[in-house]
Amino acid sequence: MARLAETSSTDRMGIIARYREYLPVTDKTPLLTLHEGNTPLIYAENLSKQLGLQLYFKYEGLNPTGSFKDRGMVMAVAKAVEEGNTTIMCASTGNTSASAAAYAARAGLDCIVLIPSGKIALGKLAQAIAYGAKIVSIDGNFDQALSIARDITAHEPITLVNSVNPYRIEGQKTSSFEICDTLGKAPDILAIPVGNAGNITAYWKGFKEYKAIDKIGQLPRMYGFQAAGAAPLVHGEPVLQPETVATAIRIGNPASKEGALNAIKESYGLIESVTDEEILAAQKLLAQSEGIFCEPASAASLAGVIKLRQANQIQDETTIVCVLTGNGLKDPDIVINTMSFESQTIPATYDAVLSLIKK
Amino acid sequence: MARLAETSSTDRMGIIARYREYLPVTDKTPLLTLHEGNTPLIYAENLSKQLGLQLYFKYEGLNPTGSFKDRGMVMAVAKAVEEGNTTIMCASTGNTSASAAAYAARAGLDCIVLIPSGKIALGKLAQAIAYGAKIVSIDGNFDQALSIARDITAHEPITLVNSVNPYRIEGQKTSSFEICDTLGKAPDILAIPVGNAGNITAYWKGFKEYKAIDKIGQLPRMYGFQAAGAAPLVHGEPVLQPETVATAIRIGNPASKEGALNAIKESYGLIESVTDEEILAAQKLLAQSEGIFCEPASAASLAGVIKLRQANQIQDETTIVCVLTGNGLKDPDIVINTMSFESQTIPATYDAVLSLIKK
Repeated sequence: MARLAETSSTDRMGIIARYREYLPVTDKTPLLTLHEGNTPLIYAENLSKQLGLQLYFKYEGLNPTGSFKDRGMVMAVAKAVEEGNTTIMCASTGNTSASAAAYAARAGLDCIVLIPSGKIALGKLAQAIAYGAKIVSIDGNFDQALSIARDITAHEPITLVNSVNPYRIEGQKTSSFEICDTLGKAPDILAIPVGNAGNITAYWKGFKEYKAIDKIGQLPRMYGFQAAGAAPLVHGEPVLQPETVATAIRIGNPASKEGALNAIKESYGLIESVTDEEILAAQKLLAQSEGIFCEPASAASLAGVIKLRQANQIQDETTIVCVLTGNGLKDPDIVINTMSFESQTIPATYDAVLSLIKK
Repeated sequence: MARLAETSSTDRMGIIARYREYLPVTDKTPLLTLHEGNTPLIYAENLSKQLGLQLYFKYEGLNPTGSFKDRGMVMAVAKAVEEGNTTIMCASTGNTSASAAAYAARAGLDCIVLIPSGKIALGKLAQAIAYGAKIVSIDGNFDQALSIARDITAHEPITLVNSVNPYRIEGQKTSSFEICDTLGKAPDILAIPVGNAGNITAYWKGFKEYKAIDKIGQLPRMYGFQAAGAAPLVHGEPVLQPETVATAIRIGNPASKEGALNAIKESYGLIESVTDEEILAAQKLLAQSEGIFCEPASAASLAGVIKLRQANQIQDETTIVCVLTGNGLKDPDIVINTMSFESQTIPATYDAVLSLIKK
């Protein structure tokens, strides 16, 4: 698949070709890509001034399937191909299934998605359906779906691509590389939403690897933010019934708990929670101040920064990168349901329109 | 706003900074950007083999608001700022309103979107609402909305950003530049969906400009594809009641008709129609063969190429770039409504799942 890399610019060649020396890539690993990565690092012109910070957003919603999952999935699927498997499997109802299905289609593999019945959010599965995944609805919850997926993939020649697949974190760490390559250094603080905790683990791994080879001089502090109704790492114990509007981080018992706690400890960082109200306010503020539309879970990073800054826990002009994990188009209903807009119809005349817009 | 450009890689600096020498940019034009452009040119590994072509997709759905409109809108909004206006306006219910609202937010302008009542597709307006546009619903159709918008912007210090704004086409032509910069030449054929016809006009302008300064040796042939139920350029007369599942090209009287016909004539190209069935089949084929999810209108380009290839009207191994104008996430309902998937729930057991996936 070498053609894939040759036909694009250096930055846009995909993460395996661009960062292969830092990844578990062999001569037999296919250069699979949908041109994931190289997402924009957007300087917050307006919010930086408002908050007295040097604020940037790493907009992962512009990955091929609209979320950061693509970075890890391309590695996991490429390794599945290398190992000779022709089928991948995951338990998911969200961003993971979309990404798995897309890369399976590209690589010519079959993809099986196990979903818990009664939790079939059709809109969220639209991508997996479009990409042609085989969707299996089971009469049980997510934990049961994952448990069956683990059992089956342990006994069949099928690759499990849930976050327990170690190649996922390897691919995801490349976002840290890109941030450092663009800024010329690490930020003072990396602010990131924390759900299953694989992503904060991956970013920290990436920063440490760049530090080890002197690509950066200083490591960032890792600031993780959980939704208040799904904050097991803040509380120090699993949450049995996690609840939050930020569905992508609605997780009560994170698989990568140890990695997250380690990142926070080693980096002199912190883990904090933000309420659903703070998350939705940050999502709206980001869209209306900077023109960047993210899904609610992503806005937890900005919500956390605002909360800490207002409590005087972040110094003036600190350089902060907030990770925006997913595209707002993943969940348009939340906008319709939570943001107000004028729905009154007026006559189709010059005067009626002019008087309304001058109000 | 120079900071914006400095913080990103050369390719990802946004179209105004990257291509300013080819754009109507002055020292007073702000370097406005949401890092639009530099979208991936994806080689079709699987479909190229199937079709016996050298096939690429220019995936414009990875622009900041999910469509090609961002290229033109950043120019139109930057020029509005340069001219001292603080408000922009458009008539739209789709991709234009999302893009206008995002760039207005970024530039600190107000944005007014006129929508025809009864055609308020809430899902499609979710982005405009999120970005904080002022949405005005009028008791009339789209033509009336546009007419009022033209009148008001002619008399008030408000910039009209519908496709009649000439800076839109200037920005949109940069996609041709990117294709040539990546391929090192123009393709033999550029295949593109045609609705209001501004985009085919813009691409042709871009190719001709690159030819004039010897950046490319040969110009491509321009192949435009309209939906069968909304094909005024194919029929040679306006369609009073255009109908197609591809809503983004459901236009009966294209504003840039002359530009489109000129591009086709000058390039020895063609204009052809494809049915809704062909469009939906191409959308599905693209997602399931290459892992690329586009909105239905975008798939008209691939549908047209398949139709012509099957009729032996395209030679073996011709290099073709199909433009994919928008992200599939813009219209998830179409997937749920048109693609089949397994909805039966099975017991949460190893054996039940295994037997189903082995079927």
